[in-house]
Amino acid sequence: MPADAVLVVAPHPDDETLGVGGTIARAAQGGARVSVLTVAAHMPPLYSEEVHRRTVAEARAAHAALGVAESVFLDIPAVFVRDRPTHELNGMLVEAVRRLEPRVVLIPFPDRHVDHRAVFDAAMVATRPVGPGRGIAVVACYETLSETHWNAPHIEPSFTPNWVVDVTATIELKCRALACYASQIHPFPAPRSIEAARALAAFRGTQAGFAYGEGLHVVRMTAPVEALLRNAT
Amino acid sequence: MPADAVLVVAPHPDDETLGVGGTIARAAQGGARVSVLTVAAHMPPLYSEEVHRRTVAEARAAHAALGVAESVFLDIPAVFVRDRPTHELNGMLVEAVRRLEPRVVLIPFPDRHVDHRAVFDAAMVATRPVGPGRGIAVVACYETLSETHWNAPHIEPSFTPNWVVDVTATIELKCRALACYASQIHPFPAPRSIEAARALAAFRGTQAGFAYGEGLHVVRMTAPVEALLRNAT
Amino acid sequence: MPADAVLVVAPHPDDETLGVGGTIARAAQGGARVSVLTVAAHMPPLYSEEVHRRTVAEARAAHAALGVAESVFLDIPAVFVRDRPTHELNGMLVEAVRRLEPRVVLIPFPDRHVDHRAVFDAAMVATRPVGPGRGIAVVACYETLSETHWNAPHIEPSFTPNWVVDVTATIELKCRALACYASQIHPFPAPRSIEAARALAAFRGTQAGFAYGEGLHVVRMTAPVEALLRNAT
Amino acid sequence: MPADAVLVVAPHPDDETLGVGGTIARAAQGGARVSVLTVAAHMPPLYSEEVHRRTVAEARAAHAALGVAESVFLDIPAVFVRDRPTHELNGMLVEAVRRLEPRVVLIPFPDRHVDHRAVFDAAMVATRPVGPGRGIAVVACYETLSETHWNAPHIEPSFTPNWVVDVTATIELKCRALACYASQIHPFPAPRSIEAARALAAFRGTQAGFAYGEGLHVVRMTAPVEALLRNAT
Amino acid sequence: MPADAVLVVAPHPDDETLGVGGTIARAAQGGARVSVLTVAAHMPPLYSEEVHRRTVAEARAAHAALGVAESVFLDIPAVFVRDRPTHELNGMLVEAVRRLEPRVVLIPFPDRHVDHRAVFDAAMVATRPVGPGRGIAVVACYETLSETHWNAPHIEPSFTPNWVVDVTATIELKCRALACYASQIHPFPAPRSIEAARALAAFRGTQAGFAYGEGLHVVRMTAPVEALLRNAT
Amino acid sequence: MPADAVLVVAPHPDDETLGVGGTIARAAQGGARVSVLTVAAHMPPLYSEEVHRRTVAEARAAHAALGVAESVFLDIPAVFVRDRPTHELNGMLVEAVRRLEPRVVLIPFPDRHVDHRAVFDAAMVATRPVGPGRGIAVVACYETLSETHWNAPHIEPSFTPNWVVDVTATIELKCRALACYASQIHPFPAPRSIEAARALAAFRGTQAGFAYGEGLHVVRMTAPVEALLRNAT
Repeated sequence: MPADAVLVVAPHPDDETLGVGGTIARAAQGGARVSVLTVAAHMPPLYSEEVHRRTVAEARAAHAALGVAESVFLDIPAVFVRDRPTHELNGMLVEAVRRLEPRVVLIPFPDRHVDHRAVFDAAMVATRPVGPGRGIAVVACYETLSETHWNAPHIEPSFTPNWVVDVTATIELKCRALACYASQIHPFPAPRSIEAARALAAFRGTQAGFAYGEGLHVVRMTAPVEALLRNAT
Repeated sequence: MPADAVLVVAPHPDDETLGVGGTIARAAQGGARVSVLTVAAHMPPLYSEEVHRRTVAEARAAHAALGVAESVFLDIPAVFVRDRPTHELNGMLVEAVRRLEPRVVLIPFPDRHVDHRAVFDAAMVATRPVGPGRGIAVVACYETLSETHWNAPHIEPSFTPNWVVDVTATIELKCRALACYASQIHPFPAPRSIEAARALAAFRGTQAGFAYGEGLHVVRMTAPVEALLRNAT
Repeated sequence: MPADAVLVVAPHPDDETLGVGGTIARAAQGGARVSVLTVAAHMPPLYSEEVHRRTVAEARAAHAALGVAESVFLDIPAVFVRDRPTHELNGMLVEAVRRLEPRVVLIPFPDRHVDHRAVFDAAMVATRPVGPGRGIAVVACYETLSETHWNAPHIEPSFTPNWVVDVTATIELKCRALACYASQIHPFPAPRSIEAARALAAFRGTQAGFAYGEGLHVVRMTAPVEALLRNAT
Repeated sequence: MPADAVLVVAPHPDDETLGVGGTIARAAQGGARVSVLTVAAHMPPLYSEEVHRRTVAEARAAHAALGVAESVFLDIPAVFVRDRPTHELNGMLVEAVRRLEPRVVLIPFPDRHVDHRAVFDAAMVATRPVGPGRGIAVVACYETLSETHWNAPHIEPSFTPNWVVDVTATIELKCRALACYASQIHPFPAPRSIEAARALAAFRGTQAGFAYGEGLHVVRMTAPVEALLRNAT
Repeated sequence: MPADAVLVVAPHPDDETLGVGGTIARAAQGGARVSVLTVAAHMPPLYSEEVHRRTVAEARAAHAALGVAESVFLDIPAVFVRDRPTHELNGMLVEAVRRLEPRVVLIPFPDRHVDHRAVFDAAMVATRPVGPGRGIAVVACYETLSETHWNAPHIEPSFTPNWVVDVTATIELKCRALACYASQIHPFPAPRSIEAARALAAFRGTQAGFAYGEGLHVVRMTAPVEALLRNAT
Repeated sequence: MPADAVLVVAPHPDDETLGVGGTIARAAQGGARVSVLTVAAHMPPLYSEEVHRRTVAEARAAHAALGVAESVFLDIPAVFVRDRPTHELNGMLVEAVRRLEPRVVLIPFPDRHVDHRAVFDAAMVATRPVGPGRGIAVVACYETLSETHWNAPHIEPSFTPNWVVDVTATIELKCRALACYASQIHPFPAPRSIEAARALAAFRGTQAGFAYGEGLHVVRMTAPVEALLRNAT
């Protein structure tokens, strides 16, 4: 049912799990149909075909662990997303919104990685509250370790969450999904380590009233107040 | 039931209706129990007892029109809210949160009126995600015509809504409630006229995908993604 | 006379009327020579020649209604403005400033539409207080319904006007000019409807001390204090 | 004539000259009637009566040098402005606006000095576009050396001028007026030295297209575009 | 020696350890003389004498664990710091700067706790680059769990560190010092738990190139580039 | 020795001297090895070969005056930096960081000049605290007259220094180095005149506690507190 559709837009494989792996798992367990749209791929010219195959396989394993219903890969070469004509990239995302009719859309924060910015821009256009975007109840940005926190403080936008989802029940699942990304996740104290992801979740969570959380920046919400009353746990 | 409780904190009578009259009416029609806590009063030393009686009566009439379940008046003299000891004002709001157990708390934006800032500060303390505040799903600020938009641009915070509630179905009720405030609302082009309120609602609404809306600034949300799926209309 | 020249830079036909139609009409009635420079066109490859012809005709009709003295169309295909070499686009705007010697330059706010950002960037370069730009008394950004308000709040810049022009006397003319854009303006509650434009004008106006207003963001002003004394109405 | 009235609000003697001495002199020479309202005084309990007499005498000499038409001293003890009841301080400024009917109001930027913030707050209330404030064409904040630039960067508001007035013709007058403040101005490299003031003026001026300038932050402007055309030099 | 003096200003006992416990320990081990100035106390009227005695004893134990050379307690009742006359509170901090001649001053971020804001304000005045403050090489704000992160996002300032100190070698010492605050620190998932502090340190550290870190916001630095060359590890 | 290496990234010849000429000279005199990496060149297609030769010669003379140890010119045509593939430009800067192993990296503020933004972006990627960037103690942005101050206030980032280096001892050297740029520096009141540079230095310096200073915006610092103690002068 469209009323249960969640769309997560990931610039590259692993961003969706780093950012909202726990939220995806929780929503999926709660009956939502979660789709992950991965825009860029670690493919030629900057990466080998071998790396491409491996990272897509890792993504599929991680998505399966989290309960993702549908995984779409747009296969634009990493670091070249900005080079696509604006209308073409926008069109790809508009098409996804039109087909999936999501109520919730989670997109990357525009950070140090040039692809993250390009994907954010296109997602902001595709989720405008007109046409296919009119049915969306909330658009929010997620953070990704070792990119989001490398924006220049007070020159570029800083990620400060105004929405934290309690993922205490799914933090282990998230860590397991992260472990699927063997080529992307490194041992502590690497900035993209499982320990760093767990630390961020404990920091976000404890400051929001629970144990583990995932932080989001609400960009646009049109849900009625009543939505937040009945189902809030 | 607590799970259906909404708390609207108003600095003075009429702020709640100007800011979220349509949202209150919609939530009440949807089954929510809405309480309005009015902190300051137009009373001596700066206002007469007569004005005090009249504005409270106007507030009660407006609340009745909107379907407010409970109206509480703290009766702190207007323009003197900041003069109350910090712990005392905080305590009053903490007590309200403890007693009402709201899931949604709507508070004023800290703007040009010194009382609005004092009430915002106290409400921010009372809704922290600890103790009685842990059950709150969302805290958000509303705008009030002819105060919120008089903050100094780019020196003081500007109100930019990230949440717009569709009040197309209750805009007329809101205007009727505003009309109850005969002493506060003046004919167009007064900044606090019914026409100005309607214009703001049409501007917020049409830019968010519908006809009339009320803008909010999400301060803190902990609702799960699922809440926004099932009930979203 | 250069001392009376106003330059309005429009990314696409209709932006100038949506943003500052009332201001243009008031200035023209007051004796100013207003030029509108429209940068992009709804033309191939994304739009048909037919649409191109129609939108230019609509623009000419709207400009005539407002009293625009000169309409220039740069005819860069819409959504492709960013693809022009930087120095070429900058050069086009520098040339316009050199030829028209405007005292007042009104430019688009850099918002969700990629062309608006490109035009803003080029206009900021062309109006630098050196060379031909030294004679400019004020550069300001205007807002355009259904683009300006779709920037991501608190990630991208938000439009908060620090200048509101009283257009009570020309609001009807502005609405008539908007009506010329039959292909761009849709019935309420469309975000680019005449009702939405009128609502925005009433909101901006009533909050600034009059009935209808148009909001601007002052980017750079070098007028002396005396200018604001004698002629202020 | 009210249409030529300029009101400069100074927290303490010398702030008006440091901030807008050149602008005052230029406006006065151009025929404007400039009033300076000095809110606080270097008086007991923190300063001696002797210091009080001296600083007021210095202010009168500086004002005379600049061509100020009227000097009002509210005589609130320095560092105690915030301690006045809100409504009383607001009332003093409202009264000044009502009596002087200024078209241009220049106020301090809310910076490190607690009195500057209190005066800014009260001036913002007194210049609201309602009642006596409706006739004001522009409200702007000025900077004062050795206070404005000591706000905490990126925590507190930063002064970034969007209006620079050319004071090339009056910079020497400004320096002469500063020299009247023998008790407040110290030799280079003191932050409140004449050399520092001249350096700031050269920095603001050269970046705005001329030699010496004074920077202002436009808070609210309602002048029509036409005002900026005819008289702009 | 003054050239080795570090001053940490704490609003209440435990803020210094939560914020910069690891940095204090590292500096002390490196030969610096670290003083902690605690402004407010958990004392009557809102707290009992018993609580006062206990929290001071806890602070002394924590300071000892970290290697603090001198602990000063100003003993202003908690939640009443703002009520002290401005000049008196400023004077206390100026006196401390004058006596200790610190090269590095670490102060609280102005956050949700009203005392933190009052202490920040006074510390900003006391560390101005004039008089006793001229010898200070850097002033920076630290974050305190469960207050700093409760500022209203995008309305109040957000803490975004531009300086992260590597405390990998002293994180255990910091946790031991936190454990001294038995009355203030609670078990996970309390927001002021040792686990939350460790998680924050791992998050700050891993994103800055090491394991554990403490984040700071540089307010004012005057150190020469050379200082950062020779000693940087 | 790497521990003494400073890397200054200049978009065009003269930016490094305008921004941090005094800091470079001071560091060089203090024993640091300073490298200047100039990214763009005034070369064809927009400039002649003659201009190219002249500006490089000017740069070499200025660098010699300041004591620069190594000057590298990447020779990307001015205004075309953005047109280089992202990964290629990033790669050039990563390579420089890898080879020079700087402890301090000074980069341009992202301002009105499109090349400054492209260079800032690439430098931010190259100095991330991973790989070769892990040894960097501080990354900071400098300001360049007549570009940095032409960003649109409150729409684009504003330069507000949180680090000011005392260059009183080297301001004359800086002015001499500026004089080497005969083709770029013009007589007062040109925005890029030696007088304007000296005025900015006096303004930055006097507000920071000394005579002449250069302002920097700290982007990322990982130096320990101890570094700021021993060597601070």
